[in-house]
Amino acid sequence: MTTTQVFTRRDLILISVVIVTTLAAGALHYATDTEVLNFVVAGAALAALASLVGRSVDALGERLGPAATGILQSALGNLPELFVIAFSLKAGLTDVVKSTIVGSILANVALILGLAFIVGGVKHGKQKFSAEQGRNLSLMLTLAVLILAVPALTSALHTPAEGHERTLSVLVSVIMLALFALSLPATLARRHPEGGHTSPIARDPGSEAAIKAAASHGEWPMGLAIGMLAAAGVGAAFVSEWFVAALQPAIVTLGINETFAGLVIVAIAGNAVENVVGIQLMARNQPDYAVQVVLQSPVQVALTIAPIVTLAAPLLGAASFTLVLSPMLIAALLMSALVAVLVVYDGESTWFEGCALVALYCAIAAAFWWG
Amino acid sequence: MTTTQVFTRRDLILISVVIVTTLAAGALHYATDTEVLNFVVAGAALAALASLVGRSVDALGERLGPAATGILQSALGNLPELFVIAFSLKAGLTDVVKSTIVGSILANVALILGLAFIVGGVKHGKQKFSAEQGRNLSLMLTLAVLILAVPALTSALHTPAEGHERTLSVLVSVIMLALFALSLPATLARRHPEGGHTSPIARDPGSEAAIKAAASHGEWPMGLAIGMLAAAGVGAAFVSEWFVAALQPAIVTLGINETFAGLVIVAIAGNAVENVVGIQLMARNQPDYAVQVVLQSPVQVALTIAPIVTLAAPLLGAASFTLVLSPMLIAALLMSALVAVLVVYDGESTWFEGCALVALYCAIAAAFWWG
Amino acid sequence: MTTTQVFTRRDLILISVVIVTTLAAGALHYATDTEVLNFVVAGAALAALASLVGRSVDALGERLGPAATGILQSALGNLPELFVIAFSLKAGLTDVVKSTIVGSILANVALILGLAFIVGGVKHGKQKFSAEQGRNLSLMLTLAVLILAVPALTSALHTPAEGHERTLSVLVSVIMLALFALSLPATLARRHPEGGHTSPIARDPGSEAAIKAAASHGEWPMGLAIGMLAAAGVGAAFVSEWFVAALQPAIVTLGINETFAGLVIVAIAGNAVENVVGIQLMARNQPDYAVQVVLQSPVQVALTIAPIVTLAAPLLGAASFTLVLSPMLIAALLMSALVAVLVVYDGESTWFEGCALVALYCAIAAAFWWG
Repeated sequence: MTTTQVFTRRDLILISVVIVTTLAAGALHYATDTEVLNFVVAGAALAALASLVGRSVDALGERLGPAATGILQSALGNLPELFVIAFSLKAGLTDVVKSTIVGSILANVALILGLAFIVGGVKHGKQKFSAEQGRNLSLMLTLAVLILAVPALTSALHTPAEGHERTLSVLVSVIMLALFALSLPATLARRHPEGGHTSPIARDPGSEAAIKAAASHGEWPMGLAIGMLAAAGVGAAFVSEWFVAALQPAIVTLGINETFAGLVIVAIAGNAVENVVGIQLMARNQPDYAVQVVLQSPVQVALTIAPIVTLAAPLLGAASFTLVLSPMLIAALLMSALVAVLVVYDGESTWFEGCALVALYCAIAAAFWWG
Repeated sequence: MTTTQVFTRRDLILISVVIVTTLAAGALHYATDTEVLNFVVAGAALAALASLVGRSVDALGERLGPAATGILQSALGNLPELFVIAFSLKAGLTDVVKSTIVGSILANVALILGLAFIVGGVKHGKQKFSAEQGRNLSLMLTLAVLILAVPALTSALHTPAEGHERTLSVLVSVIMLALFALSLPATLARRHPEGGHTSPIARDPGSEAAIKAAASHGEWPMGLAIGMLAAAGVGAAFVSEWFVAALQPAIVTLGINETFAGLVIVAIAGNAVENVVGIQLMARNQPDYAVQVVLQSPVQVALTIAPIVTLAAPLLGAASFTLVLSPMLIAALLMSALVAVLVVYDGESTWFEGCALVALYCAIAAAFWWG
Repeated sequence: MTTTQVFTRRDLILISVVIVTTLAAGALHYATDTEVLNFVVAGAALAALASLVGRSVDALGERLGPAATGILQSALGNLPELFVIAFSLKAGLTDVVKSTIVGSILANVALILGLAFIVGGVKHGKQKFSAEQGRNLSLMLTLAVLILAVPALTSALHTPAEGHERTLSVLVSVIMLALFALSLPATLARRHPEGGHTSPIARDPGSEAAIKAAASHGEWPMGLAIGMLAAAGVGAAFVSEWFVAALQPAIVTLGINETFAGLVIVAIAGNAVENVVGIQLMARNQPDYAVQVVLQSPVQVALTIAPIVTLAAPLLGAASFTLVLSPMLIAALLMSALVAVLVVYDGESTWFEGCALVALYCAIAAAFWWG
């Protein structure tokens, strides 16, 4: 399945899509004011760039060994989403920022995992994956979500801490980043399996190989990988700005509210599309890696994106930004975590479980339609 | 334990009870206005008819094979409850309708399952059942409950969707019925165990045999089974109307509120009594089938009764009916699901776990006493 | 590790600390009004006395056999905390009472268990314990917490039961004590392992031995054990009163609010310090006993301390005391239970899981800082 070419057919398609959509998005941004078209094209370019960032990180990782790959992937894997969130915050779209954070978690845990279970289950019947890994990931996701929920609960439940949400959000952010930092030694210790430490956050090397196989990766020399990552990163930064610029007029034209736009559209374009590889892995009957890929991303969003945005908010002109999500976003977050625990804790999946996950996603998304 | 007679002693007792209580309920309905007596007798008749419907469906299923039994049982097993809910809605007793839906789930998950664990545990010590089946059922229950909770959360958490609850309830109902429809192929595939699909909703054939043994079923010819089902169905329709007619004056006389009446009394008469067979199966040390019987019913209530009532509401003169349950009903529902997951996920039960379940049921029911 | 001396070195240190801190606390109480110093010394004395009560109960248990130990430990193990809560209630510090109950559960489930996992994980890598025992304890904790949450939910969710919280709290207390009473036969049946009943509440005899080993217990004659228990109990009663007397002025001086004082400081001094033995057991690679010791205490707090205080409230001049906890305390309680379930259900622990637990504890505690 893998080839020794530098660029596989799939690579070439991806790079072509990136170039075409990025140029088109740029042209539309500077030349026109067709809001909806601008928005759709920039969204497509963003999703393509997110895939290319992921591909470059994997390629770079292959040259640096598994430990570095884990750290790189943890640090850079959600780069495009981080850009979108940062530009949204700078544009004052606070509701978009918060709902995108929740939506990235929800989309992976319910929609992408559900689709992966359906595709895998229809092709291969009941599939089994490592229950231990599933438990680790679902535990981390639940703890991250509960910690993330503390500022919102504090505000929604009218505790005396009302009025101190910014300080509490900063504190919670520091706690989350500390947890993330503590997970890195486990990543570095990955090469010594006897160490007994398994990182619940960073991908394991076997998973890299499986992803490579699923994605028919070629072997990129280190210089190419770094260049591609830099180009994709810069591209993602530009396209994110265009995407956010088109977001507000587009949702007015389309009659969508900011929360729904963030929860569903931005979350899928910025984060979830990249994880489509999880569906491919399930179709290839590699449920272990599929579950790891799909569930790692929401853990990273909760443990790194949310706190970085909170801490960096003053630099983006949003000094009062807090992690106080609306009660319904908190409910969506807690439901996602609960369901993730239930479906992966037993180490088995069926297509019907996948249907139930997608059904939950649709019901929650529908609840945010009006605004 | 099984006999080759058409009617076993147990059948004859059941049919006698059905005839006597139904006639008495009818006489009281048309001849008297002794509200409480009417209500009690109609409740007893309803519980007896619910058992007879269940018995007839099983008998018919024996003639049609396991797949059809599963579908029949899924479609008709909660018929009497559906009638009661429909007549309650027609009578404008919206609170009774909502609390009956929640109460049916709660009564099975906490009261009946708790009593089954106590009876089984006292007789046989710790009992083990298939953890996989327990996980499937508890996953389905949780997903169904979470989807069902979406309209209520939307309303309780003051989201912008306030005012659109009817549309959202219809949407959620369609999603739940779609999930139910998707579970039917799994039921049909049951005959091919290598298919790898296990229906989380419909009973499996072995369970039918065990229930038959527990209930000392005779073999009913198909004509008799169809006739009995039709008679029991028609009877249930009439008695449901009488029961609902007596409900409102009776609760005024007794000083109970509508929510408590629905949550505890109507739910037990209309749904839970039928599942007493689950307690019998536990006493016979067949915990696999017991857990299946007791937990299937609440899943069906959430996935079929709730959406059918919502969609049919305009036909019953309640065009504005929504699935917006009161926050405390939602809390009761979520607690039931959480506890169901915890007690069945490990595939073991003890009498003390049963006591804890019954204790939770009592505490929740007590919270609804005042109104 | 164990010795045949009456007093081990550790015993002598503990008794010395008890005498010195108790005398100092008494002197400060009667002679000075240095609020903060009084409070700190009384808190230290209380923690030391709690350890001595635990030590005496264990010593007495060794003379009475395992069943009696279980019952004694269940009944007297949380004696010092009961005194503090009773004196707080008498002093009208209702918020302290409620937050101490929640804090005792939270501190054990998140802070102490987290520290135990970190210490154990750093020394021994991944540790495995009986998943079955973990499941039993987490199930009991969840059920106890859910039952305890019913009065608060009733009030917070504006049900018609508002205004009846005292009656509902009494009812819930009776239910919890009944559950506790039902757990005693299981304790007594412990000597007959074939009985199949495992008490989810009282310690098992092997655990006593392990605790003895961890704590380098000497063998105390029965008279000494009874005398020591009586002395420690009386001491705890006095010191509790002094501690509560110093509490209110101290928190004014320190600028802490009552809820935070109860949730963090009182809970750790009165209950959690005693469970430090759980951390020692984990360091000795006896995770089975460690998890049992750490999780039993919160179950006992929920099932005995909370209802006893509620029922005894009229004797303490707080006839209107209810179990209506503030919504954020309920959220903290539910999060603790959920996390306890997740971390112990799989029967494994790592140091990183421990870090995540401590992180959750810090985030929740921080949310109560302002008041």
